[in-house]
Amino acid sequence: MADIHRRGWCDGTGGNFSCVASKEPLVLLMAPSGVHKGRVRPDELIQVDRSGEVIAGSGKASAETALHLAIVETCGAGAVLHTHSQAGTLLSQWALEGNGQLPAEAAQAGSLELCGLEMLKGLEGIHTHATSVRLPVLANDQDLPRLAAKARPLLPAAPQGLLIAGHGLYAWGRDLANAHRHLEILEFLLEQRWRQLLLQALSQHRTLQHEQA
Amino acid sequence: MADIHRRGWCDGTGGNFSCVASKEPLVLLMAPSGVHKGRVRPDELIQVDRSGEVIAGSGKASAETALHLAIVETCGAGAVLHTHSQAGTLLSQWALEGNGQLPAEAAQAGSLELCGLEMLKGLEGIHTHATSVRLPVLANDQDLPRLAAKARPLLPAAPQGLLIAGHGLYAWGRDLANAHRHLEILEFLLEQRWRQLLLQALSQHRTLQHEQA
Amino acid sequence: MADIHRRGWCDGTGGNFSCVASKEPLVLLMAPSGVHKGRVRPDELIQVDRSGEVIAGSGKASAETALHLAIVETCGAGAVLHTHSQAGTLLSQWALEGNGQLPAEAAQAGSLELCGLEMLKGLEGIHTHATSVRLPVLANDQDLPRLAAKARPLLPAAPQGLLIAGHGLYAWGRDLANAHRHLEILEFLLEQRWRQLLLQALSQHRTLQHEQA
Amino acid sequence: MADIHRRGWCDGTGGNFSCVASKEPLVLLMAPSGVHKGRVRPDELIQVDRSGEVIAGSGKASAETALHLAIVETCGAGAVLHTHSQAGTLLSQWALEGNGQLPAEAAQAGSLELCGLEMLKGLEGIHTHATSVRLPVLANDQDLPRLAAKARPLLPAAPQGLLIAGHGLYAWGRDLANAHRHLEILEFLLEQRWRQLLLQALSQHRTLQHEQA
Repeated sequence: MADIHRRGWCDGTGGNFSCVASKEPLVLLMAPSGVHKGRVRPDELIQVDRSGEVIAGSGKASAETALHLAIVETCGAGAVLHTHSQAGTLLSQWALEGNGQLPAEAAQAGSLELCGLEMLKGLEGIHTHATSVRLPVLANDQDLPRLAAKARPLLPAAPQGLLIAGHGLYAWGRDLANAHRHLEILEFLLEQRWRQLLLQALSQHRTLQHEQA
Repeated sequence: MADIHRRGWCDGTGGNFSCVASKEPLVLLMAPSGVHKGRVRPDELIQVDRSGEVIAGSGKASAETALHLAIVETCGAGAVLHTHSQAGTLLSQWALEGNGQLPAEAAQAGSLELCGLEMLKGLEGIHTHATSVRLPVLANDQDLPRLAAKARPLLPAAPQGLLIAGHGLYAWGRDLANAHRHLEILEFLLEQRWRQLLLQALSQHRTLQHEQA
Repeated sequence: MADIHRRGWCDGTGGNFSCVASKEPLVLLMAPSGVHKGRVRPDELIQVDRSGEVIAGSGKASAETALHLAIVETCGAGAVLHTHSQAGTLLSQWALEGNGQLPAEAAQAGSLELCGLEMLKGLEGIHTHATSVRLPVLANDQDLPRLAAKARPLLPAAPQGLLIAGHGLYAWGRDLANAHRHLEILEFLLEQRWRQLLLQALSQHRTLQHEQA
Repeated sequence: MADIHRRGWCDGTGGNFSCVASKEPLVLLMAPSGVHKGRVRPDELIQVDRSGEVIAGSGKASAETALHLAIVETCGAGAVLHTHSQAGTLLSQWALEGNGQLPAEAAQAGSLELCGLEMLKGLEGIHTHATSVRLPVLANDQDLPRLAAKARPLLPAAPQGLLIAGHGLYAWGRDLANAHRHLEILEFLLEQRWRQLLLQALSQHRTLQHEQA
């Protein structure tokens, strides 16, 4: 997590991660709630069971454990990384607001398209840049069991990632290295999408101005 | 402070910090004025009393000590961190200029709204993203006792942070770790606000152009 | 590669590099396919011959080996570095789309002009800022032998670099230090080009608005 | 210089620095030409006399030594740092092009105004934010003695810094720590100016659009 913090993806006590320590019965290794994720030590980690109860270690499990459990159970993930990056926070909100078309009332669910880039091949199972994936986006909700329930039907088809609007990214994989790869790929694609939006707006703008002038 | 400097939040000799070493009588531990904050050593720190006088260590107390003392006294803070970041400098000025509507004469005080983001929960006492905080912004003033006097009535209601226009952010907390968390959260929210402004301007722009075309 | 990863130029398993270990017969030292390039250890490197076969070490050679071999053979390079940066990904696509003028159907090949900057002197053989180079850009293709064949005629005149659209940059040099210098120079120039585009669009925009107003 | 390289201010072999090793006769300690400034070792440094000749160490003196000497002689500087940053490269060119108003023929000299910010106090002799400095900007020239001659009359009044268009920043001070402080301050102010330009253009833009709509 120190590397993830260095990149500004989990400032404050934001973000979290989980690793599957045992499958039967299901046990997750996580950082306790309220700890600075860039400075957590291995001996501070807690073990959590499938109902979200702490079974070893001291400290409380984060409310977001419900979403980690949903991802592990529906996708067979071995590790889940949750970040709060600038691009993830911004574009997840923008996606729910209809790409700037619905400022008044935002939708409850939407998606963000990522397409045509070589970097997509960093996602498990993708072998060409000539493809498009839709990262699901859910409205933020402090009722985590309800949010996890909304997420469950979307997870099996998700490209190893899910956005919560104005909140951040969940990325997962079969193990920690694989989840970390997916995290770097998705964060790269989100930052790239942000730059694409700036460049496209300016280009359209020039085209229209030339027509008006 | 080395970590804060690495992120470009206290370049040159900008920024400072204070920790409460004793409450009765009040003693602050600070870096002396004019020292590079990214490279200050523990043995270079000075002790300052409630009137701003240096009572241990060598070097001068920064003029900004008056504001550190005001924060400690009115908010019961145990630590105060002061940074000069790009987003903090830019948006604090922009807020006083009426969000770009008052280029001629800027106001003496204003505020910057931060709302709807999960990251707000990193601020003590906030438990949902569905909220809005107003970060107070004061015009810059080289008369620090006067600036501190203007700040005092605003501090108790401030979200653990205060902006000085064209200058930077003060963030505080009950101890150094807590103040550091609030600093990371507020700097994240300021940088995010800057990106939101760019994206909103470009979106409105496209909408209006389509209407004109 | 750790330094290159720190700068966000080879996230996930993106990017690769090759060094000429022997000229006769030609042997390249490379990282195996699918390894995280920011964390590869010297003992994990593989040796590849001129037909792209692994002749020492364990793991598969990347499909992109064909392009590394084309560069080494046509330019006499001693080292090739391949990165996936934000600016390289964005501007390579933008160049093939006719600088935002051809959104529907992108071209198969194009170029990106870099001119007038002192940094150009960091490219071998350039001794003044008052010059212009054209970085060739090829459409991305998962058929690497075909892509390498398209690249070969463009390589001898290329300014120690080649862009693949929506994919990234190849930079090379007579040895690893020289290739690394060219990489830093070209990545700097790409990032600068991106900032130039933002500033130019906003400036033109202001000029036209004043005429309209 | 490693810290300066980490921030992307001297990529490739760009940038250089000099320290006064002796005043009578004048001797400068510098990195030799063509070396990567982020990785130069103390034992690789060369000594250069007031005519620009290498008097100790191996390697060639950079052509830019003429400008280092001009700064040391006219400003009494003890150290000079020269960087190639994104903002310095971009805004120096923009300043000579009349802030985007003279795209065809750029001027030979101009200036960039930096004003109203607390960070200005990091420059020696400035004690209030309520001030304005003009950073001189010269057109780039590969004839360094000619460029140094053009710079000499501008140096005494310069705010411890000079920009060469499309090239970068020279910052200086009475010793290396002081020059480094001025470098960080000026680079901060340049990056801030770039963000101000983006925000101002977008604000004007919204104002005008509302009038048109």
